[in-house]
Amino acid sequence: MTLRHVVESQQFTVPLLMELFDRSRLMERIVARGGTLDYQNRILASLFYQPSTRTRFSFEAAMHRLGGRVLSTEHARAFSSEIEEEQVEDSIRIIGSYCDVIVIRHHEPGGAARAARVSPVPIINAGDGDGGQHPTQALLDLYTIYRERPLDGLSVAFIGELDRGRTARSLAYLLAKFERVKIFFVSPPEQQMRSDILQYLDRHGVRYELESDIDRVVGEADVIYQTRVRPGRPPRVAGAQRYAINSSVLQRMKPDAMIMHPLPRTVELDKTVDDDPRALYFRQAANGLYVRMALLTMLLE
Amino acid sequence: MTLRHVVESQQFTVPLLMELFDRSRLMERIVARGGTLDYQNRILASLFYQPSTRTRFSFEAAMHRLGGRVLSTEHARAFSSEIEEEQVEDSIRIIGSYCDVIVIRHHEPGGAARAARVSPVPIINAGDGDGGQHPTQALLDLYTIYRERPLDGLSVAFIGELDRGRTARSLAYLLAKFERVKIFFVSPPEQQMRSDILQYLDRHGVRYELESDIDRVVGEADVIYQTRVRPGRPPRVAGAQRYAINSSVLQRMKPDAMIMHPLPRTVELDKTVDDDPRALYFRQAANGLYVRMALLTMLLE
Amino acid sequence: MTLRHVVESQQFTVPLLMELFDRSRLMERIVARGGTLDYQNRILASLFYQPSTRTRFSFEAAMHRLGGRVLSTEHARAFSSEIEEEQVEDSIRIIGSYCDVIVIRHHEPGGAARAARVSPVPIINAGDGDGGQHPTQALLDLYTIYRERPLDGLSVAFIGELDRGRTARSLAYLLAKFERVKIFFVSPPEQQMRSDILQYLDRHGVRYELESDIDRVVGEADVIYQTRVRPGRPPRVAGAQRYAINSSVLQRMKPDAMIMHPLPRTVELDKTVDDDPRALYFRQAANGLYVRMALLTMLLE
Repeated sequence: MTLRHVVESQQFTVPLLMELFDRSRLMERIVARGGTLDYQNRILASLFYQPSTRTRFSFEAAMHRLGGRVLSTEHARAFSSEIEEEQVEDSIRIIGSYCDVIVIRHHEPGGAARAARVSPVPIINAGDGDGGQHPTQALLDLYTIYRERPLDGLSVAFIGELDRGRTARSLAYLLAKFERVKIFFVSPPEQQMRSDILQYLDRHGVRYELESDIDRVVGEADVIYQTRVRPGRPPRVAGAQRYAINSSVLQRMKPDAMIMHPLPRTVELDKTVDDDPRALYFRQAANGLYVRMALLTMLLE
Repeated sequence: MTLRHVVESQQFTVPLLMELFDRSRLMERIVARGGTLDYQNRILASLFYQPSTRTRFSFEAAMHRLGGRVLSTEHARAFSSEIEEEQVEDSIRIIGSYCDVIVIRHHEPGGAARAARVSPVPIINAGDGDGGQHPTQALLDLYTIYRERPLDGLSVAFIGELDRGRTARSLAYLLAKFERVKIFFVSPPEQQMRSDILQYLDRHGVRYELESDIDRVVGEADVIYQTRVRPGRPPRVAGAQRYAINSSVLQRMKPDAMIMHPLPRTVELDKTVDDDPRALYFRQAANGLYVRMALLTMLLE
Repeated sequence: MTLRHVVESQQFTVPLLMELFDRSRLMERIVARGGTLDYQNRILASLFYQPSTRTRFSFEAAMHRLGGRVLSTEHARAFSSEIEEEQVEDSIRIIGSYCDVIVIRHHEPGGAARAARVSPVPIINAGDGDGGQHPTQALLDLYTIYRERPLDGLSVAFIGELDRGRTARSLAYLLAKFERVKIFFVSPPEQQMRSDILQYLDRHGVRYELESDIDRVVGEADVIYQTRVRPGRPPRVAGAQRYAINSSVLQRMKPDAMIMHPLPRTVELDKTVDDDPRALYFRQAANGLYVRMALLTMLLE
């Protein structure tokens, strides 16, 4: 079971996911006891055409915790001429001759796949455009759920701007690999999950429902996966509260529900939720470290 | 004597300062012989919402000289959406799960205190807004003086735009902890040191004078602490020369005076001063490395 | 034979070049077997006033492959106040007290020389302005040629916007150090190589020809060194194809010609050339790692 590049979440089979999760638990234990691994001669390059401090730090910390080294760009796009922007393939071929693995965040869907096509070293997609993917986010999301309960038979509600959210798209692909999963997509009708994902779920026999009313779903789901609302995008400015998670929504959730969010958040997830034991989003972010460490060990061996 | 976060200079007691300075001297010796310490599994994250290459490099070099590792942002604010900017608490909670210590420069007074309130790891304030603090600058300033002469009985003249300078504010707090200190604040009346600092000095029985004429002070002070003038801020464009240190001012200083400046400088500190043996500002900057190494060892143990 | 700073390519003598190239081959072998060197306590600072991800990564990877540590700025100029920009000397004196070697890219010709004048540690010029130099690019270019054939007796055609290209200027200085070299400068007349370089070649007895027609040269040169065309600079938008290398130009080249380009490229070098065995530009970029590792070992000992 070798892994060459990580471009889309659907490329992971269930056995590969289980190997990744086994390794992730091992990484948790190694970090907890302040240990490291022997990757001291290996270099990770993070090539972020769009800035994302949290995601970048998560990958770079993972490489450091393995004992490795890091080359870093914070905002390659702002800092490149028009020329360079058009030549992601040339950049990857060159940077690939300096390092052992490249983490790329590109501003266009398909950017990571273009990189993978020419790269001499493994490519990890750290997000490629609105409507693209963010597979390692989906992997850490799934790992967070897996640490709490069986994945077969799970019911998951995705809430928010689902037409543009990378995280919901990538995680939906992964959930389709498990048995008896039920998905609720909760969103204003004009921001519902796109048909490519729905058709994928149909082909894989996954049950799903499209909803516009959060109240009809919130008491039924094992996982409430809230997603980011972009300020200024209509009609959310007025209607954002309709989809927000706050103390009144909390009361209607299952007692053992899991509240997740890829962060950063805005009005859609109230800070009063933070103290609820069902709020898992900070643990979810912390798990990113272990899953990315595990993934790097699989790509670098 | 444990140290959890470094937010304000006044949190340091005299014994804590002396422990820090002892460790700083040890760090000088370790660096001088090309040695290192065993922090190879520890990670520092520098989270700069405002850019400051020198300060950032000083912290990052300190962590490297200890044998440690670094995650770095050059300008987190420019690279973040409005969402992220409002969520410094969320950022800190997440980034704190990836690293062992966070150095933050925030653009608003109180930014570091907000971070410290939620952080799972130690926070170091590397400057928080005009009129905020910059405690490690004050620590290295004081260490620089301490290496040259006793702190009790010292007379210090602060010169420049004192109403907005973080460095003069932070150092004034520290000086108040020593005996028989005398402070001169030399500035155009409309840019004088703010009343919160003056009241603090009153409460601690520190003698001070407000002056607008540099000539009345320059022959009396042991330390001439010049501060940066921001170009374009009236009325300095015309009057900047009145407060500048140049070869004619040099002649009126004590023969063993110490000339200090937090750098970078503009017209207020002439380059002809650089060759005077009393000019200590480059040694002052170099001391930042040792003091920050020492501080990191205290926070990470 | 000690090397203090690397500011201009012409400072390298032939014996120094040969020592550098011997070390570069050694570095190739060390990297190929996944090894490293014992620079773990040494710090390189990359101070880029202009962004250049590829060049910066090449230096930083070189330091990492030696086992060393890196402080990094992606775009110091954008992130500095006007004050700081004017004070490159002060920045260098301070940053030089935190690290063991500084790589600087400055936006003005002479920026690296200014830095070298005050620096307490070795300075490497990584490009200083249009019409300035980029000596390590020239060193890796020459090393790439040297790995393929003897440097004495070489014929080299430089093609493109030669009046502003740093790379052609820096490599021309180096070529002048070898015997029986012949250079063709191929460019629209208004963008021809400047007279300072031509006079230098005259003084050193190097034969050269100024050409505006690529067809008169392409069959004669051992090395076809294509340079970047800046989009939007007249008259290239219309006439760029006249100087482009494409499959029809390929047919007229010598069977053992070497096609080089500093990258990034635009229309002047067609992607169809990539599969030709004479295309050496990706190997050229990869050689940057070895030459920069070798250079760092010479500067740091």
